[in-house]
Amino acid sequence: MCGKDPQLLSGSPDWFDGIQRLSILAGLRITECAAFIAGPFATMSLAELGASVIRIDPIEGGIDYRRWPVTESGSSLYWAGLNKGKKSVSIDIRGAEGRELAQAIITAPGPDAGLFVSNFPATGWLDFKALKQRREDLIMVNILGNRDGSTALDYTVNCAVGFPTVTGRPGDPAPTNHVLPAWDLVCGLTAATGLLAAERHRRLHGQGQLLKIALSDVALAIVGDLGFISEVQINGSARERYGNDIYGAFGRDFETADGRRLMVAAVSAGQWKALCKATGIEAAIAELETATGSDLTRDGDRFAARDKIATLLTPWFAARTLGEAGQVLDAARACWGTYQSFEELVNTDPRCSTANDMFADVNHPGIGTSLTPGSPITFSACAPVPPQAGPVLGQHTDEVLAEVLGLSSGQIADLHDRKVVASAAR
Amino acid sequence: MCGKDPQLLSGSPDWFDGIQRLSILAGLRITECAAFIAGPFATMSLAELGASVIRIDPIEGGIDYRRWPVTESGSSLYWAGLNKGKKSVSIDIRGAEGRELAQAIITAPGPDAGLFVSNFPATGWLDFKALKQRREDLIMVNILGNRDGSTALDYTVNCAVGFPTVTGRPGDPAPTNHVLPAWDLVCGLTAATGLLAAERHRRLHGQGQLLKIALSDVALAIVGDLGFISEVQINGSARERYGNDIYGAFGRDFETADGRRLMVAAVSAGQWKALCKATGIEAAIAELETATGSDLTRDGDRFAARDKIATLLTPWFAARTLGEAGQVLDAARACWGTYQSFEELVNTDPRCSTANDMFADVNHPGIGTSLTPGSPITFSACAPVPPQAGPVLGQHTDEVLAEVLGLSSGQIADLHDRKVVASAAR
Repeated sequence: MCGKDPQLLSGSPDWFDGIQRLSILAGLRITECAAFIAGPFATMSLAELGASVIRIDPIEGGIDYRRWPVTESGSSLYWAGLNKGKKSVSIDIRGAEGRELAQAIITAPGPDAGLFVSNFPATGWLDFKALKQRREDLIMVNILGNRDGSTALDYTVNCAVGFPTVTGRPGDPAPTNHVLPAWDLVCGLTAATGLLAAERHRRLHGQGQLLKIALSDVALAIVGDLGFISEVQINGSARERYGNDIYGAFGRDFETADGRRLMVAAVSAGQWKALCKATGIEAAIAELETATGSDLTRDGDRFAARDKIATLLTPWFAARTLGEAGQVLDAARACWGTYQSFEELVNTDPRCSTANDMFADVNHPGIGTSLTPGSPITFSACAPVPPQAGPVLGQHTDEVLAEVLGLSSGQIADLHDRKVVASAAR
Repeated sequence: MCGKDPQLLSGSPDWFDGIQRLSILAGLRITECAAFIAGPFATMSLAELGASVIRIDPIEGGIDYRRWPVTESGSSLYWAGLNKGKKSVSIDIRGAEGRELAQAIITAPGPDAGLFVSNFPATGWLDFKALKQRREDLIMVNILGNRDGSTALDYTVNCAVGFPTVTGRPGDPAPTNHVLPAWDLVCGLTAATGLLAAERHRRLHGQGQLLKIALSDVALAIVGDLGFISEVQINGSARERYGNDIYGAFGRDFETADGRRLMVAAVSAGQWKALCKATGIEAAIAELETATGSDLTRDGDRFAARDKIATLLTPWFAARTLGEAGQVLDAARACWGTYQSFEELVNTDPRCSTANDMFADVNHPGIGTSLTPGSPITFSACAPVPPQAGPVLGQHTDEVLAEVLGLSSGQIADLHDRKVVASAAR
């Protein structure tokens, strides 16, 4: 369990504060009844900081248990990736006795427990008021599709909030969905933030509560935060489609002599100066500024002149391999990155390997060994939680029934016999 | 200030717990020296929960102060959107006296203070050890580009982690950047989560610390969490480019009779049944299952048969307007969404209006009134923080110098005279 067997850091960088002992959320216990990304990702982010997360699933697995990608034998890489380090409890939650057990786990006592995350409708046995009667200071985070409780997924929210109409090649009349489930991820971390805020409030004031977060509200808030709403309302115009260009500054992708592609960015005067220096276009840029009366140290002027700037840069990249261009850009401290496929990332980028302390090679039951990330946060005074595998479905049923609910082995055996619970081990 | 003048909820839904008093993070004080998205968004997310956030900027504004989109008069909608509800303090941080003042604000005493977020290099006057000498239990969150301290932006991380090679039209050889700065947003909320976890640890154990989060690590962790790394390593294949289709289930965009476009999703058996029922393709699907020996209630089988399914659905959508199709889909409880431009979203979607409690019309100084979001989280026992405007640069310089550092009006006037600080009010 996270935090129980702390890992001492070897070779700690000098900014670490002395002995590493507990992980930062060691002792916190969260129960989850959820599926897909936002809910499971919320709690996994906290498990990666040392919280003990109990995921309750129906005996045959939740609706995301076989979600693609899957291995040849049908194990879900998706499920394994989003439930790393959790305890899995299998309960027949269609029956009254199973629901009673699940409620008991959710509302079990302890100052660091009574934290619950769900993206199922908070009705029936998951109704907040019913749960609160069992534990007055329960904190429940309920993730919804829309604020009114209607269904929405990342895909059906994303299409509504404008981004697909500005993603992809200029001139393409069709919208382009992004593949990253960005809204789910942002929603999950919003839920994690809200849960910790509510736990702080409970510690200070003794009061639990229900948090509601709608996926579509998360996306709408971001649209506003990033200025897209005020662009329409104040400027009377909406963002156009600029392909791979960075809006409002200079950034574009270029092809190199060896057929690779890279992205260069100049969103500050310093990055711009570095890019010009690296590629030797300083004199040409000075001429361009004189000819057009622009000041290309200014973001907006660079954006307006982006095609002319790109015309100056294209031959420089076309004359160099990725390696050659990268070396010169690095020496000038320019900001750039290589386009990589998932294979190139996994097979060639040292950041995506065990050379990066965030990763370890972990054996996932029924799947095999793969490079597995832990939390991207490093704490100077707390032990990191080593990257972990996802559980086998029902792996921790008996452990949780015994440790959290205090059931005897006879009581647990009886629940198994009557198929109220199931366990991977049986 | 957040939490000082609590807003009583009128017309509270019945799941609210009694009187709303303080916002959930009322009293917490965070200082920020940051720019662009990840850092400012991290603290703004906490300001929206009631934390008092002090953003320190150089007197002329930070490097993001004029970031596009801007109004006709040059005010940044971007800056206004990412700094809502913060206090702005302007200090000459190039001079020793200004740096001393900034350090004093960052490390000022108080059990709810001593929280600091920065995405600048943690060296010189922002060195953690130097700051820690002024406040032993300081919590500092340092957001980096790469783990080794080298520069990276959302754009230069995104190109490296695979997604642009699978985003966009199948067959397009060029990568497609997504326009949403997803990695910055995920990184910012990871930072917010880490900060609250560290504040909890300090409350329990009295210990502060330095948190480091690299933007590229955030992206790499997500690539692993979502199964893309194990797809390469375990399955020996990488995700292909499927356009707007949902991978591993059924989801696609369709055009309606009135030239609109919508996205339908069937990632569960229930959603699939609803879609078939709504569009009346049940018999055709049964035939298809018999002919191909597939079971289309299974995600993977639907994905394999997606083109055949789409062929059945296309004429149904082509024969109906968006309004007609939507009505039938809603009645069957199918999962779908409309593609909307930013204008359509802002001008026609009731979720993006003051009919949604998350929004209010807010007057932004120097910009005008626009629909402005607050936090997407609703708390049943804490007051919401009303949507707020961003500050005028230096608006709170005098207030913070007086209230946080206890300087007299004479001392503050002297700092102004010597141009160590500046204030919007002067």
